[in-house]
Amino acid sequence: METIVRIDTLRDHVGETVTIRGWLYNKRSSKKLVFLEVRDGSGIVQAIASRSDIGDELFAVADHMAQETSLSVTGEVRAHPKQEGVFELAVKSLSVIGAVIGEYPISPKDHGTDFLMDHRHLWLRSRRQNAILKVRHEIVKSIRDYFDNHGFTLVDAPIFTPNACEGTSTLFETDYHGDKAYLTQSGQLYSEAAAMSLGKVYCFGPTFRAEKSKTRRHLAEFWMVEPEVAFMDLDGDMALAEDFLVYVVGRVLENRKEELKILERDTKLLERVQGPFPRIRYEEAIKVLQDAYDLRKSSGTLVVQSDGAVERRPEFGDDFGADEETVISSAYDRPVIVHRYPASLKAFYFKRDPEDSRLALGMDVLAPEGYGEIIGGGQREDLLENLEKGIEAHKLPREAFEWYLDLRRYGSVPHAGFGLGVERTVAWTCGLGHVRETIPFPRMLNRLGP
Amino acid sequence: METIVRIDTLRDHVGETVTIRGWLYNKRSSKKLVFLEVRDGSGIVQAIASRSDIGDELFAVADHMAQETSLSVTGEVRAHPKQEGVFELAVKSLSVIGAVIGEYPISPKDHGTDFLMDHRHLWLRSRRQNAILKVRHEIVKSIRDYFDNHGFTLVDAPIFTPNACEGTSTLFETDYHGDKAYLTQSGQLYSEAAAMSLGKVYCFGPTFRAEKSKTRRHLAEFWMVEPEVAFMDLDGDMALAEDFLVYVVGRVLENRKEELKILERDTKLLERVQGPFPRIRYEEAIKVLQDAYDLRKSSGTLVVQSDGAVERRPEFGDDFGADEETVISSAYDRPVIVHRYPASLKAFYFKRDPEDSRLALGMDVLAPEGYGEIIGGGQREDLLENLEKGIEAHKLPREAFEWYLDLRRYGSVPHAGFGLGVERTVAWTCGLGHVRETIPFPRMLNRLGP
Repeated sequence: METIVRIDTLRDHVGETVTIRGWLYNKRSSKKLVFLEVRDGSGIVQAIASRSDIGDELFAVADHMAQETSLSVTGEVRAHPKQEGVFELAVKSLSVIGAVIGEYPISPKDHGTDFLMDHRHLWLRSRRQNAILKVRHEIVKSIRDYFDNHGFTLVDAPIFTPNACEGTSTLFETDYHGDKAYLTQSGQLYSEAAAMSLGKVYCFGPTFRAEKSKTRRHLAEFWMVEPEVAFMDLDGDMALAEDFLVYVVGRVLENRKEELKILERDTKLLERVQGPFPRIRYEEAIKVLQDAYDLRKSSGTLVVQSDGAVERRPEFGDDFGADEETVISSAYDRPVIVHRYPASLKAFYFKRDPEDSRLALGMDVLAPEGYGEIIGGGQREDLLENLEKGIEAHKLPREAFEWYLDLRRYGSVPHAGFGLGVERTVAWTCGLGHVRETIPFPRMLNRLGP
Repeated sequence: METIVRIDTLRDHVGETVTIRGWLYNKRSSKKLVFLEVRDGSGIVQAIASRSDIGDELFAVADHMAQETSLSVTGEVRAHPKQEGVFELAVKSLSVIGAVIGEYPISPKDHGTDFLMDHRHLWLRSRRQNAILKVRHEIVKSIRDYFDNHGFTLVDAPIFTPNACEGTSTLFETDYHGDKAYLTQSGQLYSEAAAMSLGKVYCFGPTFRAEKSKTRRHLAEFWMVEPEVAFMDLDGDMALAEDFLVYVVGRVLENRKEELKILERDTKLLERVQGPFPRIRYEEAIKVLQDAYDLRKSSGTLVVQSDGAVERRPEFGDDFGADEETVISSAYDRPVIVHRYPASLKAFYFKRDPEDSRLALGMDVLAPEGYGEIIGGGQREDLLENLEKGIEAHKLPREAFEWYLDLRRYGSVPHAGFGLGVERTVAWTCGLGHVRETIPFPRMLNRLGP
């Protein structure tokens, strides 16, 4: 009777004879020995087949085995003579389960990104992609654990939404039994309704943007978690975002050491993600940008755009793009929270700052190292009259928001929340240059398959 | 300094003066006392305001407060004199946070389902809907915990898929930057690719069906979890489904007692959900249906359809609808697994039974009490040649499946998996007659809002 085990449990079987089932990841051989690197999803083990132990016939099988052949290997588990915590298998027998038909497309040589993306279903087998997927899993799990352990109720928001509330240009549309439906860009309005029922809620699902942008931060389909809390104000919202983010990054550091090593991530940078995060007002951020501009101007290094225009000095009312976010966040070694943006930059549902009505009680959390905004949120307008004015000022179809206005008609309360993008968080924690590797099957402007 | 607490922690504050913030759920009053039922999402507490304690002015505020007014109540926590584990508040002061503007639409009188669904954003505030949402949360969490604790990696499948593999009639279509994209009906094929990388995986997200059917079991948008395991066969698949389902139902029984009580669920029926589940072959199930038919025939109670046709005797090759599933499952007090269906009833990717090539190695788990199929799955075809034949036989576009065929070209292994529908599982565990209340904002044939 053979004992079939997973590679990540080999440490419990030293001295025993066990069977591993998996795929050949790599191989090198000499006349007398073949070293098979076998992966099974839980890890990679080196299986050493000696001609004298297994005979010429089996040795030839091992020696000629192609990369990605699926196989069963039986052998004795041994601790690696030099590397602590590493185990290997002294092969007693082996058999091929599924041969490789033709040639495995992904060879050790360098492939272009498009080629790898076309073979995403196979590329996922690489050690590096395995590591990213496991970090992603840890992030998703720690997000859910955080809210579950803090008294939040999961309330899944709908994907199909009936109204194109803020213009259709970035929405995916579908025919819904004769009506038009749009794929959700955010579950927030629904989370607000649920928070009036359950107090503390979160939704967590895929969201969609039909933007024509092709940047390293954008996907057409991405996952977002959106907590919403009744009786919480902007200060509480920032405190929640901070505590939450410290927890998530801490969990990755604690449970995904191996994966971060494979990804060659500098974990010292992640260890600095501790509260309190600096909190700066939008106007302070503008000042930082102005100082940087002034420095470039005095040194004669102002940026000239492709149309010949020279950059102008940042001023109140400017929105931040990736470049501005990088300048602002580079002054800090941990995430920085920017709050109280001009209301003109924010959606209709933000509450105005009672101390300065030009400002919205919104906040963004910018990740360090140029990873930009990973959290955006704020306190919502809770007064019916103000919200009605906001809908009018933004020229939105009032009728579509009647149900949302109901939340201010029937026992309105101060409330706040935020959204965190999973893929950007994975890119940051893994130290990736592009979000396309942070999701198993990315959907981008020019990519809908496999 | 006031101590703000949530209702579910009142037991820790007996004798203390605390503040609760929430909404008025119900009220009754006499000349000297007002009994306010206050809900805050974590529970409901009775706050007793006495005229002599709080004075005429505040007493009038309490006495005239409308249902769903949001308020803050401060008072002393007392154990209920008669009911163990119940706590109440002796009101010292209270204040209105948000008044009710107009009249709250959902009064204690009976409303029709359409009316309630139109006001779903408010209906969610009811004790019963709270209970269902909390059971749903427990089910989602226990599903994830089960797989996370058993070595599975979460691999989110894409929502946008490039091909209408099995006809477009039940697919939602969207314009994807000039191409046609379809919303996923299942992540299985992607889970299979991921299982060849990570061994044991699951995807868990929303899936979509554009069916024109209007039944108590169908939603246009529903959540599905789909585990897939390399080196697992049909027997292993059935064992996994059983162990998994026992765990999920057990978690609900353990952690959602209060909610099941509110829903008046007969928990004895759920306590019987223990392994081993009966496993019957499709052909045995047909025999059960034939016997039931014969009984009806002999007693002269055969069903006459609306077109005048009389039902015919079930035979090999028939598919099961809701009625047949109810007949089969009603013979058992726990879920029953039906396996080895005619291959003609199953999708192209099922492996044929090596002992009877008419049969596919598929299985469905039917819930008791007429709740029907909640799990469907089976062993996948792992041989390239057979899968190619299946694609041809089902007249599917070969090109669209090249990537899927790659999984059989490069180290194919036996593998199996299944899908569990969340909403049907919630309906069953909560004892609901319709799936529409199992998801926060249901999307059905005639319902796209709010």
